[in-house]
Amino acid sequence: MDQVRVFEIKKSVYENNDKEAEKLRGRLKQKKTFLMNLMSSPGSGKTTTLLRTIENLKDEFRIGVMEADIDSAVDAETIAKTGVKAIQLHTGGMCHLDAGMTESGIDAMGIADVDLAILENVGNLVCPAEFDTGASVDVMLLSVPEGDDKPLKYPLMFSKVKALIINKIDVKPYFDFDSDAVRERVHKLNPDCVVFEISAKTGEGVKEWTDWLASQVRDWNR
Amino acid sequence: MDQVRVFEIKKSVYENNDKEAEKLRGRLKQKKTFLMNLMSSPGSGKTTTLLRTIENLKDEFRIGVMEADIDSAVDAETIAKTGVKAIQLHTGGMCHLDAGMTESGIDAMGIADVDLAILENVGNLVCPAEFDTGASVDVMLLSVPEGDDKPLKYPLMFSKVKALIINKIDVKPYFDFDSDAVRERVHKLNPDCVVFEISAKTGEGVKEWTDWLASQVRDWNR
Repeated sequence: MDQVRVFEIKKSVYENNDKEAEKLRGRLKQKKTFLMNLMSSPGSGKTTTLLRTIENLKDEFRIGVMEADIDSAVDAETIAKTGVKAIQLHTGGMCHLDAGMTESGIDAMGIADVDLAILENVGNLVCPAEFDTGASVDVMLLSVPEGDDKPLKYPLMFSKVKALIINKIDVKPYFDFDSDAVRERVHKLNPDCVVFEISAKTGEGVKEWTDWLASQVRDWNR
Repeated sequence: MDQVRVFEIKKSVYENNDKEAEKLRGRLKQKKTFLMNLMSSPGSGKTTTLLRTIENLKDEFRIGVMEADIDSAVDAETIAKTGVKAIQLHTGGMCHLDAGMTESGIDAMGIADVDLAILENVGNLVCPAEFDTGASVDVMLLSVPEGDDKPLKYPLMFSKVKALIINKIDVKPYFDFDSDAVRERVHKLNPDCVVFEISAKTGEGVKEWTDWLASQVRDWNR
């Protein structure tokens, strides 16, 4: 098993999260480090999607991944095997990351040698949506088995992301899942949201997603 | 579309949630109403599992269901079609229910004519685990597509439930999911946890689950 570094991050003391988030975003911009905040339910395939993303982008960008979980280091160990920088953040039971916690992670990982930093947030569709982490872009993953009604039930999350990735499209034949219904529900909340459909397992559709992400990173780091 | 009643419930003002939970549990015991608190990730199949549960138990018990969501009333509408009492609770963005919020729901629904009350908690593996709702029993649903590593990442939830239902076993052939690994991981955290494997879609395994639940309800309401 790969040895990965595990950091315990504490609840922030800052009263004004939005201000701290803007400050962190400014710092990242100056350092030419793009930060993607990836959010989803538990088990939507965030880590597998990151493996595919790293595969496609690691020749162009120096990548660093922060895996946030309440416990365990299984995800950071999986990512570390790809050869990119990976650390595990433990949230001490916290259900989300705010800007202060994200900055602690950034400092623990170090970004001097990172063009594309990725935060895999705690698996949760509610609380992470409420806190700006200071990321350059917020992305959400929804997997086919979760159902097409999720935008109706968790509207804030679907409202605030710049891109939505629908994952596990390889199992569509076994589930009642209407992609058009999802698009319609999301675009009602968030007209500019870009929607991708992928199977992180088979690789289908992944290139469209990573092409988009690469263009975002290039724009930011210019 | 069935018209269901929707109640906005507010964050509780009580400082001591455990004390409020014990008080609610005492009240339910006295009224001979059993309350099940059902928790899971978004999209694990809580509502479909409840449809099967109602089908098997509605001849023996008078059932009332409280569907808690941040938004929408789709779940309560689905449940109402079975003919049992169903109300929708909106949590005003809150990621969980505590005892005070649960009691507001109980009061809104009314339990004089209910033997088995069911709270479908907000889809979230983190926050609901931290708050005793006053339920007679806590039950969690984990679906096959979410993966067998969830007990490692969300240990508190798996530690506190009396029963774990593994759902969507009909799609096991299409996912890497090791039920034995889940059992081992859960029992390490929670040796007495009863584990069921079901497909709410096909009905497989549901009877074992509802037989167990029925015996719990009978014991409580005796």
